[in-house]
Amino acid sequence: MNELDLVEWIRRMAGGDHRLVLGIGDDCAVYRPKPGEDLLFTADQSIEGVHFRAACPAGKIGERALARALSDIAAMGGHPRFCLISLAAPADSAWIKAFFRGLLRMAKRTGVALAGGDLASAGHVYCDVTICGAVERGRALRRDGARPGDSLWVSGRLGKSWERRIEPRLELGRELLGRATACIDLSDGLALDLHRLAKASGVAAQIDRVPLARGATMERALHAGEDYELLFTLPPARLGPRGTTRIGTILRGQPGEIRFQDRAIEPRGWNHFAVAPTAGACAHRNP
Amino acid sequence: MNELDLVEWIRRMAGGDHRLVLGIGDDCAVYRPKPGEDLLFTADQSIEGVHFRAACPAGKIGERALARALSDIAAMGGHPRFCLISLAAPADSAWIKAFFRGLLRMAKRTGVALAGGDLASAGHVYCDVTICGAVERGRALRRDGARPGDSLWVSGRLGKSWERRIEPRLELGRELLGRATACIDLSDGLALDLHRLAKASGVAAQIDRVPLARGATMERALHAGEDYELLFTLPPARLGPRGTTRIGTILRGQPGEIRFQDRAIEPRGWNHFAVAPTAGACAHRNP
Repeated sequence: MNELDLVEWIRRMAGGDHRLVLGIGDDCAVYRPKPGEDLLFTADQSIEGVHFRAACPAGKIGERALARALSDIAAMGGHPRFCLISLAAPADSAWIKAFFRGLLRMAKRTGVALAGGDLASAGHVYCDVTICGAVERGRALRRDGARPGDSLWVSGRLGKSWERRIEPRLELGRELLGRATACIDLSDGLALDLHRLAKASGVAAQIDRVPLARGATMERALHAGEDYELLFTLPPARLGPRGTTRIGTILRGQPGEIRFQDRAIEPRGWNHFAVAPTAGACAHRNP
Repeated sequence: MNELDLVEWIRRMAGGDHRLVLGIGDDCAVYRPKPGEDLLFTADQSIEGVHFRAACPAGKIGERALARALSDIAAMGGHPRFCLISLAAPADSAWIKAFFRGLLRMAKRTGVALAGGDLASAGHVYCDVTICGAVERGRALRRDGARPGDSLWVSGRLGKSWERRIEPRLELGRELLGRATACIDLSDGLALDLHRLAKASGVAAQIDRVPLARGATMERALHAGEDYELLFTLPPARLGPRGTTRIGTILRGQPGEIRFQDRAIEPRGWNHFAVAPTAGACAHRNP
């Protein structure tokens, strides 16, 4: 396959975009910031044998790779603007096109322009998605603002299987701007991500209950999840938006300490440096 | 190895940075654009078995991964601002730290902050570098502005071995702002990159001479290079800056057609989708 032809195909599929001064086709993409906006940046890898199995459909891998990074933009309350996609894969143009079709479906649905990236041929599939989002100056949601007495909330239900579609909680993130005291997305399990939020905020946290997805175990919700829901804290008198559940309270205590129904639990979750692949149709991450 | 500890080590090594509102440690990094700047974005992959061999020193791989992406910022006349580094590698903390030491040396030398990224464990080394640069509004150098009659110039000497250090031509890029009519960096060989510039500009080009690096062959300079020099065009009456050489002329003709000493040459160069690894100490790319 010819790389130039493939890049041309991707450029046509992506379409022009008024949000970029210059898109695919030069050494860099050019973005002109709007007055009063802060820009958000996040990168997320999707690797064959780590995040998915080779047998997984290409379109699903592409869609999911973008959705995972979008979830980080949601957690900061941002509008997604554009992405850069780096893909290394066997030189199979049908597979690569299916990957980009899946990814661009999610991009169009969430208003993300494809600004550029890098293609290479390799024995296994490796993808890295970088997204730029925008948020009103100084208003980005952060994970370090939770205070003792705040209530702890989560969107959706946890412990979901890898098979279902990721819906990045972009609207909820926008709704939480100026309301939530802290926010993080759940990508490595509730216990570990809550530990991160609590540690950054210098507080402890108590979990009372967890809304479980159908068929999910508490173990999976706490320690194995790739849920891509938002975990956030609100001042004591405030109620969470529709579709969210209060799961606990922020406490004074050892920064990062997490209690679940009155016993301390370990911040054990998905550790990207202690991978022990398990069985499953597509995923390595859900037993 | 614990991922949290490793991220903490990287954060300490990277140091705080006043150019970022928020750096490593939240869901996204936050950058506040300055009035009057356009932002430049580029991503570059460095893959074991494609761009380097496993035996290559980790620090060199890290330094080179960043330098390759910086070269794209140079080609648009930008100041580098910050980068995101995604790295998948075997869980060997000594190797990963050496990689980041090499990368951060180059980052400090060129004024790039480390804003974030993603770490994962994998069987082979895979790295993706995304860089954000900034340039005065509307002034970015592009590859589509060359006009018939313009002179064609190149920095440095071509056909260099992979072993030498990449020096991204950031100062030269700045110097060319408002002077060059088109610019591109040489990452895939002179023939292919000049073809890209000429095609984007709707012109043909004639190469008269090529300044060769010591020990380099013309074949390597034209068709195999990872030179990371700048190729640019100037209006007829203009002379190139110190350290650059006039190599030819832009012509009216079939867009993208390249002539070398009066014979047409193919835009054959590094095609990332037709990889045929060759022997060498570190590189797959230089025979």
